[in-house]
Amino acid sequence: MDPELHELFLDELADLFNAETQLTKALPKMARAAQSEELREAISGHLEETVGHVERLKQVFASLGEKAKGKTCQAMKGLLEEGAELLQELKGKSSIDAGIIAAAQKVEHYEMASYGTVRAWAEQMGHSEAVELLQETLEEEKAADQKLTEIAQSTANTRGS
Amino acid sequence: MDPELHELFLDELADLFNAETQLTKALPKMARAAQSEELREAISGHLEETVGHVERLKQVFASLGEKAKGKTCQAMKGLLEEGAELLQELKGKSSIDAGIIAAAQKVEHYEMASYGTVRAWAEQMGHSEAVELLQETLEEEKAADQKLTEIAQSTANTRGS
Repeated sequence: MDPELHELFLDELADLFNAETQLTKALPKMARAAQSEELREAISGHLEETVGHVERLKQVFASLGEKAKGKTCQAMKGLLEEGAELLQELKGKSSIDAGIIAAAQKVEHYEMASYGTVRAWAEQMGHSEAVELLQETLEEEKAADQKLTEIAQSTANTRGS
Repeated sequence: MDPELHELFLDELADLFNAETQLTKALPKMARAAQSEELREAISGHLEETVGHVERLKQVFASLGEKAKGKTCQAMKGLLEEGAELLQELKGKSSIDAGIIAAAQKVEHYEMASYGTVRAWAEQMGHSEAVELLQETLEEEKAADQKLTEIAQSTANTRGS
């Protein structure tokens, strides 16, 4: 095993652990701001999943014989700051749901990239339990992104535009 | 046409315009830090594409009768700060290329989410020239991400791990 890659792997897991924790605090605000019932429910559902992702990351750390730890994820901070700014700007506007979907998809894509990376590293280093756990979350993130695309499309169709 | 969605669309284009501009400044540092020739060349190639993306966004603005403008993209700022920090931490380590690939894929995913969003909005509002231009860039971002995955895999195989 490559000890330097292992260290980088643990660092990236700590980044994700912090990113997911930040997200559990931001999603309720996004859900409250959503106009459509469908979007509100999708975000609330993803909040529950996100709480599960934090727990799953603890299992990943445990499977490696490590204690879970976080490390401020600047990227998620930036993504969520941008999202909060957008919510403020779009308050009372008809485009608020489109804006929330855009912000949430950026978050999902960040997570897809991160989980894709750590899953690949776990595989490369033979951490099979971690591979399985990370793959589960990766699939949930992809499904959440897909769900948001569907909501965006159905909203656009309802508008008749 | 929905004037509020149009306004959001222009805002998101301004965010992307700034994000791509930030990226043109960060990619040369990433390329210089890369150990493998293959990764260095891939990043340099994507730098050229990124310069083209900035130009293409100008064309998108022009197709809408607007002048190109940027608006600080906090998310890209966070992504690049995190990337710069990582380069510093991994200096001289065997894992530096893996770290560069991870950081670059996060950037690509941010852009894929953003271009996917603005392309969908452009389609919804019937801006067909913008749809075409944004689609071209979206495909280049996806290809860049795919290329990075291939390099990561071939590096892992070379290591025999």
